[in-house]
Amino acid sequence: MKSQQQQFAEGVLFTDFYQLTMAQVYHRMGIHESKAQFDYFFRSYPDYGIHQAGYCVNAGLETFMDWVSEAYFKESEIDYLRNLKDANGRAMFTPEFLKYLQGQSVATGLTLRAVPEGRVIHPYVPNAIVEGPLIFAQLIETSLLNHLNYQTLIATKAARIYESGMGQAMLEFGLRRAQDRSGFAGARAAIIGGAAGTSNVGASAVLGYQPSGTHAHSMIQAIVAMGGTELDAFEAYAESYPDACILLVDTYDTLNSGIPNAIKVFEKLKAQGHKPVGIRMDSGDLAFLTIQAALMLNKAGFPDTKIVLSNQMDELVIWQIITQIKEESARYGLDADNLISRLAYGVGTRLITSEGDPALDGVFKLVAMQQDNAWVPAIKISENPEKTLNPGYKKIWRLYDQSQKAIADVLSLEGEDLCHLEAIHLHHPTDQTKQRVLNCAQISKVEKLHETILEDGKLVYEFPTLEQIRQTRADDIQRLHSGVRRLMNPHNYHVSLTDKLWNLKEELIFQYTNGTKG
Amino acid sequence: MKSQQQQFAEGVLFTDFYQLTMAQVYHRMGIHESKAQFDYFFRSYPDYGIHQAGYCVNAGLETFMDWVSEAYFKESEIDYLRNLKDANGRAMFTPEFLKYLQGQSVATGLTLRAVPEGRVIHPYVPNAIVEGPLIFAQLIETSLLNHLNYQTLIATKAARIYESGMGQAMLEFGLRRAQDRSGFAGARAAIIGGAAGTSNVGASAVLGYQPSGTHAHSMIQAIVAMGGTELDAFEAYAESYPDACILLVDTYDTLNSGIPNAIKVFEKLKAQGHKPVGIRMDSGDLAFLTIQAALMLNKAGFPDTKIVLSNQMDELVIWQIITQIKEESARYGLDADNLISRLAYGVGTRLITSEGDPALDGVFKLVAMQQDNAWVPAIKISENPEKTLNPGYKKIWRLYDQSQKAIADVLSLEGEDLCHLEAIHLHHPTDQTKQRVLNCAQISKVEKLHETILEDGKLVYEFPTLEQIRQTRADDIQRLHSGVRRLMNPHNYHVSLTDKLWNLKEELIFQYTNGTKG
Repeated sequence: MKSQQQQFAEGVLFTDFYQLTMAQVYHRMGIHESKAQFDYFFRSYPDYGIHQAGYCVNAGLETFMDWVSEAYFKESEIDYLRNLKDANGRAMFTPEFLKYLQGQSVATGLTLRAVPEGRVIHPYVPNAIVEGPLIFAQLIETSLLNHLNYQTLIATKAARIYESGMGQAMLEFGLRRAQDRSGFAGARAAIIGGAAGTSNVGASAVLGYQPSGTHAHSMIQAIVAMGGTELDAFEAYAESYPDACILLVDTYDTLNSGIPNAIKVFEKLKAQGHKPVGIRMDSGDLAFLTIQAALMLNKAGFPDTKIVLSNQMDELVIWQIITQIKEESARYGLDADNLISRLAYGVGTRLITSEGDPALDGVFKLVAMQQDNAWVPAIKISENPEKTLNPGYKKIWRLYDQSQKAIADVLSLEGEDLCHLEAIHLHHPTDQTKQRVLNCAQISKVEKLHETILEDGKLVYEFPTLEQIRQTRADDIQRLHSGVRRLMNPHNYHVSLTDKLWNLKEELIFQYTNGTKG
Repeated sequence: MKSQQQQFAEGVLFTDFYQLTMAQVYHRMGIHESKAQFDYFFRSYPDYGIHQAGYCVNAGLETFMDWVSEAYFKESEIDYLRNLKDANGRAMFTPEFLKYLQGQSVATGLTLRAVPEGRVIHPYVPNAIVEGPLIFAQLIETSLLNHLNYQTLIATKAARIYESGMGQAMLEFGLRRAQDRSGFAGARAAIIGGAAGTSNVGASAVLGYQPSGTHAHSMIQAIVAMGGTELDAFEAYAESYPDACILLVDTYDTLNSGIPNAIKVFEKLKAQGHKPVGIRMDSGDLAFLTIQAALMLNKAGFPDTKIVLSNQMDELVIWQIITQIKEESARYGLDADNLISRLAYGVGTRLITSEGDPALDGVFKLVAMQQDNAWVPAIKISENPEKTLNPGYKKIWRLYDQSQKAIADVLSLEGEDLCHLEAIHLHHPTDQTKQRVLNCAQISKVEKLHETILEDGKLVYEFPTLEQIRQTRADDIQRLHSGVRRLMNPHNYHVSLTDKLWNLKEELIFQYTNGTKG
């Protein structure tokens, strides 16, 4: 696809066809401007197989809003829709409907409340609530899901990987395995989740980060094939980048060739007044090789040079390497904490694709329609109680205990104010036997989670910088109990409904299952 | 990211930073225009956990070439690179290097030979071979890997899903779970692999396919919340699309409400002279519900209406549904084959993300450099013999047996011509104990797999249409032995080296491991 086609394919037509067919039905029925409310939420944390997330990191909002700001039904889009025919040659869309759409922004009349990027989020808590004309609320669904699902998925994976590295630099290297042009969004989400930067040059440029990377095996191989040696290649690299010199040492033989050659180059750099940055290893038993590399570098007088590890890194591999270093360092006379603190990680495929669970199951569900200025809850009864919606217009709260740790996210009805209650009666979203009462003395803070992003179609939110979003993420993860942050088998964070919301849901389920509705 | 930023981020800077740092080293050493050869290949078929692919379907070439055609070092890109500094504030790139790049196409001087899209491909067989100036061959690496890895991954998954559906229509519905703007590439690859279309409107527009989709639960819920009923909603839909009417029947109760209401609407349509298209079911026990739905539709006089199934579909789920229909139809007086032939599948998340294995492990490796007009093989010895490259300049062949089925892909040296041999001596790529000799009588056809796409930087290839690519895919899968096509535990398709290539590889490994090289 050429870039001109991209703008056409990824503007307002970046959507599923049924959004448009439904839009026409709404228009024909005259309910298209009736006010609707849709909730965006996910149902389960990513589960990577042998380990699973206990929290997610919210991301993608600004990227989605960039799309919204450019998503108009321009003449070219209307022309395309006008020419669509059904199998019998009948036009799919009527002139009246297309006339209505023409020139309209997809955000017309919409109010969007959402959890800011970087915040920790949990299942069933509406991460975004869209309110406004049914037709436009429906028309933004696909793009909203696309942008928020993916970046939240990757920010979550990145946060896990970063946490497993115990605060050391983690770099996003995945563009070659990214799913097409998800590379930008993936890099952005990785930075939100904890990556210090990305190898993706274009994404770095747009995001204002320094791109990361040094050289590949191919540089060594090319120079060797031209009659040179690994050492020649390292020297050539060091001449070009004397103050940013990281050498990849595993092209031929890490311990017998790569590291000794790197040390020779580092000595030369040092003599010239430069500080060598480090080595990178991309194959082999990385825990073992890290210890050996540290011994060799220390002995040569480079106790501070970084050791960058890459090759199918993820939170589990990093955890295993660190565990092994902790167990074995002493035997080699090395200080484990010191060694761990000189590591850095280049993380590719498994981050950018969220390997193990490559999709967040976020959904966008109609929960209420307005009639005569009152909200009528819309509910879909599912055979699976977990899937039955939490109805109606809601507020979202987070409660903190006396140790300033988050203990529950709470969904209430619109009129409720949890800040001024003596005690809060909480219900599990689906299991009526699970209830508890929190009294004021147990709660240090009650926080509203949503910010207003769009108001009646206008952007009313000032987007934070990526650095601010990163700080939000770090703070929020800090405010989780350690059990929730665990790499495997994390504690279940509580998501609860207030009495009033629980009662409304019960009442609606009763009405529907007894046939008085629907 | 706004669309203007997209063009900047996803042009020639859609790359890993180290491609640029290496490029500068090559330039500084004066070897940047030395001729290099890189092979693109993958090492293993996607493995989805309990099942795995026995073949891949090649895709992404035209999309990659669209990128190439627009990837120039324009002033804006050069300005960006000029301003990049290392940690000490020293410019990363020299004026000489940037002057060399300015205005250049990333394809300058490159020749690209590649397997056409839609063809079945196998591990270790170079799917693309790039030859030309070292600097540009290196600079296209990231984008080539990105585009070909992802579309091949998705075309492969789509082919599996389509095959499991026994020829019935399969539609790509995954945009909401796609990884950001991979939606277009994913939809394109899905169509190559066998999807009849996609719900992605923008992608449909650019690719020239009719977009697919009808309505969601939200349409029913909205109308019910406004005081209507499921039947009202169905009727409203049918009025707008009398000749394209597929109704989603599982919003409240599939068997007691959805299907009876759909039948009422279908009767009305029929009376008006329209032909109802079908129903869609998106939850519950779909094998059981399919049989029940067929019974109800048949009884009502709609034995031909389609039954579209969605909800976490993949090749295994479809196989399970079809198996159950085969086992149980007779008991209900239904003809299983007839029922299977009225099914269609809406496939979302698990296709667009290739769930189970979300990345193809394709790599782009330097295999030879030219010196004095002769190719010098470049080889990287790995501790893992599977990872040791097949060296030098190669040709790629496919052999067919007397039943016209493909039996082996063969890598030979450039000078070899497999069309005119009495017998072909084949070696397993890494296991020297595995050899075999095929004589002429066993072989019905010897086919060269590569087409020339770029010649000295110029496009010399006429891209086939998507429909032609789909036909290529169908023909190639037809030419696989059934064991290779199997859903689980497929036969190993043979990929072999000729005597001469095997001997060259052995010799080089010997030279390197004995220290006479590198």
